[in-house]
Amino acid sequence: MEETERDCIFCKIVKGEIPGDIVYQDDKVLAFNDIDPKAPVHVLIVPRDHIPGIADIEDEQKALMGHILSVASRIASEKGIGESGFRVVVNSGRDAGQAVLHIHFHVLGGRALSWPPG
Amino acid sequence: MEETERDCIFCKIVKGEIPGDIVYQDDKVLAFNDIDPKAPVHVLIVPRDHIPGIADIEDEQKALMGHILSVASRIASEKGIGESGFRVVVNSGRDAGQAVLHIHFHVLGGRALSWPPG
Repeated sequence: MEETERDCIFCKIVKGEIPGDIVYQDDKVLAFNDIDPKAPVHVLIVPRDHIPGIADIEDEQKALMGHILSVASRIASEKGIGESGFRVVVNSGRDAGQAVLHIHFHVLGGRALSWPPG
Repeated sequence: MEETERDCIFCKIVKGEIPGDIVYQDDKVLAFNDIDPKAPVHVLIVPRDHIPGIADIEDEQKALMGHILSVASRIASEKGIGESGFRVVVNSGRDAGQAVLHIHFHVLGGRALSWPPG
């Protein structure tokens, strides 16, 4: 295990070492409410495996990315915003404000989301 | 071909029936500059196949979603913003302002992107 992984807060949530307000989980991903929500629904979906960011996705992890989007849709439906709509956001690097170097998909909804997206 | 697909502006760009300012293409996806850019770099990546939205992703299309993220990273590097950072955004439905019912990944960068993302 690399240093970055050992210190990774999302890996710790995945392993249950830190509590997370979990809304969905399966053998591949974990989803939990953002601790600083920016919309009535604001969930983070992370892969259980430590993938630092978009630039680090291996070929065999590509289907996992699609699975995460399907989980986003499922969570949106369960939260009652499947029809009204939701936005999925993935940040990469400093300019985007990526705060944790474990790839995570923000799912926001429950209000009208403005444009541009930041 | 369904009515929605025949009238789809992104399908028309994919087929070359409408010009697009194309920055990348392969056998699975097409990427072109947004006609109303909200950042120095603002590219849309779409699958060649007509997938209306996140809720419509089939199992066999999941790897394609990961491929699109890898293409986002590649384009970011080519545009010189791989290191400074970029944001990937997928809108679903009214509240998120999804304007075209053909799934598309916005890639924005080249400036500091604020939070929340809309």
